[in-house]
Amino acid sequence: MNKQVFSSPVDLKKVTVTDPFWQREMELVRKEVIPYQWDALNDRVPGAEPSWCMRNFRVAGRMMAEQRQKGAAYVPPTYTYRGFQALPEDPAHPEEDKFYGFLFQDTDFSKWIEAVGYSLTQHPDAALEQIADEAIDVVCAAQNPDGYLDTYYIINGMDAAFTNLRDHHELYCLGHLVEGAVAYYQATGKDKLLRAACRFADYIDSRFGPEEGKCKGYPGHEIAEMALIRLYEVTGEEKYLRLSKFFVDQRGQEPNYFTEEDRIRAEKEGRKWQRPATGSAYHQADKPVREQDEAVGHAVRAVYLYSGMADVARMTQDDSLLAACDRLWDNIVSKKLYVTGGIGGTHHGEAFSYAYDLPNDTAYSETCAAIGLAFFARRMLQIKPDSKYADVMELALYNTVLAGMALDGKSFFYVNPLAVVPDACRRDQRLWHVKPTRQKWFGCACCPPNIARIVSSIASYAYTENEDTLFTHLYMGGTVEKDFGGKKLTMEIKARMPWHGHVYVTLRCDAPVNGTLAFRIPNWAQDAVITCGEKHPLYQDGYAYLAGEWHDGDMITLHLPMQVRMLAANPAVRADVDKVAFRRGPVTFCAEQADNGADLHLLRVDTRYIGDRGEGIEWEFDETTFGHETVKLHVPAKRLLPQESSDLYTLWQPPKEEPAKLHLIPYYAWANRGEGEMLVWLRRK
Amino acid sequence: MNKQVFSSPVDLKKVTVTDPFWQREMELVRKEVIPYQWDALNDRVPGAEPSWCMRNFRVAGRMMAEQRQKGAAYVPPTYTYRGFQALPEDPAHPEEDKFYGFLFQDTDFSKWIEAVGYSLTQHPDAALEQIADEAIDVVCAAQNPDGYLDTYYIINGMDAAFTNLRDHHELYCLGHLVEGAVAYYQATGKDKLLRAACRFADYIDSRFGPEEGKCKGYPGHEIAEMALIRLYEVTGEEKYLRLSKFFVDQRGQEPNYFTEEDRIRAEKEGRKWQRPATGSAYHQADKPVREQDEAVGHAVRAVYLYSGMADVARMTQDDSLLAACDRLWDNIVSKKLYVTGGIGGTHHGEAFSYAYDLPNDTAYSETCAAIGLAFFARRMLQIKPDSKYADVMELALYNTVLAGMALDGKSFFYVNPLAVVPDACRRDQRLWHVKPTRQKWFGCACCPPNIARIVSSIASYAYTENEDTLFTHLYMGGTVEKDFGGKKLTMEIKARMPWHGHVYVTLRCDAPVNGTLAFRIPNWAQDAVITCGEKHPLYQDGYAYLAGEWHDGDMITLHLPMQVRMLAANPAVRADVDKVAFRRGPVTFCAEQADNGADLHLLRVDTRYIGDRGEGIEWEFDETTFGHETVKLHVPAKRLLPQESSDLYTLWQPPKEEPAKLHLIPYYAWANRGEGEMLVWLRRK
Repeated sequence: MNKQVFSSPVDLKKVTVTDPFWQREMELVRKEVIPYQWDALNDRVPGAEPSWCMRNFRVAGRMMAEQRQKGAAYVPPTYTYRGFQALPEDPAHPEEDKFYGFLFQDTDFSKWIEAVGYSLTQHPDAALEQIADEAIDVVCAAQNPDGYLDTYYIINGMDAAFTNLRDHHELYCLGHLVEGAVAYYQATGKDKLLRAACRFADYIDSRFGPEEGKCKGYPGHEIAEMALIRLYEVTGEEKYLRLSKFFVDQRGQEPNYFTEEDRIRAEKEGRKWQRPATGSAYHQADKPVREQDEAVGHAVRAVYLYSGMADVARMTQDDSLLAACDRLWDNIVSKKLYVTGGIGGTHHGEAFSYAYDLPNDTAYSETCAAIGLAFFARRMLQIKPDSKYADVMELALYNTVLAGMALDGKSFFYVNPLAVVPDACRRDQRLWHVKPTRQKWFGCACCPPNIARIVSSIASYAYTENEDTLFTHLYMGGTVEKDFGGKKLTMEIKARMPWHGHVYVTLRCDAPVNGTLAFRIPNWAQDAVITCGEKHPLYQDGYAYLAGEWHDGDMITLHLPMQVRMLAANPAVRADVDKVAFRRGPVTFCAEQADNGADLHLLRVDTRYIGDRGEGIEWEFDETTFGHETVKLHVPAKRLLPQESSDLYTLWQPPKEEPAKLHLIPYYAWANRGEGEMLVWLRRK
Repeated sequence: MNKQVFSSPVDLKKVTVTDPFWQREMELVRKEVIPYQWDALNDRVPGAEPSWCMRNFRVAGRMMAEQRQKGAAYVPPTYTYRGFQALPEDPAHPEEDKFYGFLFQDTDFSKWIEAVGYSLTQHPDAALEQIADEAIDVVCAAQNPDGYLDTYYIINGMDAAFTNLRDHHELYCLGHLVEGAVAYYQATGKDKLLRAACRFADYIDSRFGPEEGKCKGYPGHEIAEMALIRLYEVTGEEKYLRLSKFFVDQRGQEPNYFTEEDRIRAEKEGRKWQRPATGSAYHQADKPVREQDEAVGHAVRAVYLYSGMADVARMTQDDSLLAACDRLWDNIVSKKLYVTGGIGGTHHGEAFSYAYDLPNDTAYSETCAAIGLAFFARRMLQIKPDSKYADVMELALYNTVLAGMALDGKSFFYVNPLAVVPDACRRDQRLWHVKPTRQKWFGCACCPPNIARIVSSIASYAYTENEDTLFTHLYMGGTVEKDFGGKKLTMEIKARMPWHGHVYVTLRCDAPVNGTLAFRIPNWAQDAVITCGEKHPLYQDGYAYLAGEWHDGDMITLHLPMQVRMLAANPAVRADVDKVAFRRGPVTFCAEQADNGADLHLLRVDTRYIGDRGEGIEWEFDETTFGHETVKLHVPAKRLLPQESSDLYTLWQPPKEEPAKLHLIPYYAWANRGEGEMLVWLRRK
């Protein structure tokens, strides 16, 4: 491990994003998602399932107040399980002292405050900040005197806390709280929530760890691992690093904690215990993490874990842990990644399927999983600046992550299929999880706020830095400041990604500055050219390094050619044999019924007319279809004519076809023009 | 409707089947399935889930004896629901007075006795007949004095009888009991079971019907409809016809019986009632049968209903009912039929999927549904001798029905997929219902006994007759007697279907006989030639009619050419676009890993070398592979070579292939040589 190249995301306050593409997305988050989400957290979205989130914090806050008032006379509630999602008998009259919603509902707030924090760095907003501060007061009032802060157990009975780490998301709540608190602190300098998060983390630290008498468990839904590293980075408190490392090291050790926990719980409840048939692979706890080499189980949990593993590997310079990260990365990228940057082939357990099982119509490809994959990629980049990580991060971001949100920011996909026939989604129970149109909100609202937090912090995926190098992983118009040995260098970037391959960088500094600027050469840019006056780049692992002294006004130009690429999947992918997909730059395309009529499966790409560099494919810039600049492709094709007879089976005859064009749009923009068929992988001759 | 052409199956005692193909299957049933099944009924198959069937009859019988003994002092049990399948807490010590197993477990006996009956007509067996007689004694002893005979309610409490017609299979038990009783009576002349069945039917008749005060319900799982027609035919009792017609007419009328029943039950149980989201389509009760035009819901139930509808239509010469049957038939055959003669595209509800949704790997295609399709086809043939019905009947029988049983008669498929990758079946929960190898027996043991009863009565699908015509629908070696106006004519048939297209018929009679012999011309036999001395056939609806005076020794020869046919599916079938399947005669073929290696999806048929009449496809008779005569096909093909890079996605290049042969075996014989991949629809150029 080469510690020299380790890098960290730049401070968001030192970045501006003026790029039209990303600014549009960030403004959607700021103007649509964050306010909507706040209404949702407060159960005032008409027609939507209540979140109960802020209400639960208030209920817990009242209990804390009562406890303070009564002291020893206070009788805490005794825990009874009321289901994974508790709903009031009469929705109009919830009981005053009850917890409602999913048992991880606190995280609705944590994700929201995190997005708010990022948004404030780019767009200060006193009114929003005041709302946030008031929300923080409500949340902090709910904290147990010992630091514990998960309203599910505070309200339902602390006697059962930490008795079901596998399913009950307490440590997941910790993780999200930390992420939100750090983001809000970094944006505003206000530390009330950060201190609450630290107290919760301190309490967990007092209860979990390798020391005798402490609990040997770890999160059922990972995120605390990476969150604690962030808390360590912002506070410098080693105990958070130790706790994160403990969770990572402990995972999957024998005797298996989740299995034992379940057995003990069964004993207590007088229920007959059976070893879970599926083992602990769903939770990535079937073996110690350093022995894992296949990405398995719930896809979001998996990539959250791997992100935490990468963080711990970097912080502790643990080669064996990094090796595991690399094996898991390679496994995902070479066997379990959709061409849209999505992961999770099966809805059973929202999980990774087996190698090369990437079905298009029944795909799960959860938005959050693609987001988690970007988390993992960014963390691998922080360890090793290798563009292979950035390529996948970019693919996930520009395709599946953005597809998760409608172009008006008002509706969301949880599941991101690669082939949709709306009627099939309605008629076929095997497709119950696939929606042909985006939904307003979800009871289990993980994806919309997750989009909000990644989009509003996109610059922290674009730039990382270490002492002597500023890395640019993604290209977006705006500015970024870098301190080189006490001297400030600002890059002004003009770019119109993902449609244009020219990037113009102008450097600003008061006095000459010495330092290295590293620019990623994407895998899609063949024959990239970098011009920088007299300086010649050094190329390594897909990055162009420009070092030396910089002067005000220095210019760097990148030409990253964007050819349309016609892709084939490895023949081991049964679902995609005899099919092709299209990309231009980082954007994967798809065919929609709106442009091609129904029965998309009758169209096939005529590969005879298409060259290696996309020759034969017409493409155009298009500002009208979606109200912002995009690119459309027009691909030579044939359309299979309907059969003359109505027979189901006939003697095979060479198919009768007519010439046609396949009109393709960016995948992220699908399902914004009413309901219709969609197809990413297209039949080909 | 032309009553003149109505026909009935021939008496099985007037038929012999010496054909090697079908005799082998019948002997498997006689020697393997029937004895095994008897052991299963008596819970003495090591390692198999107990059936509890005969035990339940014994428990009920003891209760009946107690009732007789105590008279008015007898206190019957009060009903409590114990689940769809009731299992003892301790399997080694079932409680003496409890009902166990699925609530339709009585039918295990009924299906067995039916197969026994058929088998005895072909192969008298005094020992088997004695076992059967003793079993009948046990069953009859369980009958309630009023005639009711379903041990589930007799044991659990008669107070709840007829309160859940939708789910609790009482009328299904009646139907199977009647089918079994009639078969055993026709085979042996013994009427004890038939009288019990009549008493049960009489009791049902006293409780159900259009008259005021009678129940307006109908079977949740159909079969009673066709069974009662059989009972009417054997007893001449009009009430059974009326009852069957009532069930058919009443089905799906408003107010919907099942919905009302469920509402009333919910009220009684104090449970909150919700209208079932899926309606009554699963039970084919969403609308009156005469308004139905799409085959929907549970596939077995559907075709059992349609069989009963056809019977009632024939018996009452009801044109509107026949029109519904024809619409439903056309809907199945033109939109919902697998190329293997299977039906039921989805495992959700073991049901028909929507039009043209015929997935290969997740197919349900239950063995029993294909059997039910043959029932329906035979009944349509009885109304209208049109070979289109016989073509589908034959397709179902030779392919999916036979695929349901291993070649050694010892294991069975419930589900019959058209594409199997064994590893996927194990790793993919979406394929939980698909087994790559046949299973010994099932707790819900419908398919094995259903195969037993159809195989052992195969001659009743081969021949039907009316006063002046003997119809031959299927060709099999053996003899069949026909009485023409008091004079006996015997056909001696030499045939080696499904491999050889020559059929030789020699007529035997003591004196000249006048009558019509009708022979089916299968849709697969192009340029069929029939030779019959001076007689010239008249062709109508796919049958060749030979009429006139017959003399001893007259010969009829049919030449039914069997070309290998390469089939394409209607392009509306998304799963089969760009694919072909192969048939020769009525047999559909498939590729197995045993002959082609793994990764069958890498092979594609090279259609350039294949002519309309199968030119270019090599084929051979083969007696060694499966221990009986079959045919193997060798199809020109190409094999896609593995990709050089291990990348998941690469720039598309014309695929690198090597010449290959695809070796195909009959679909019914798959999965008899260990576990491996299988594929019916093959990629093609």
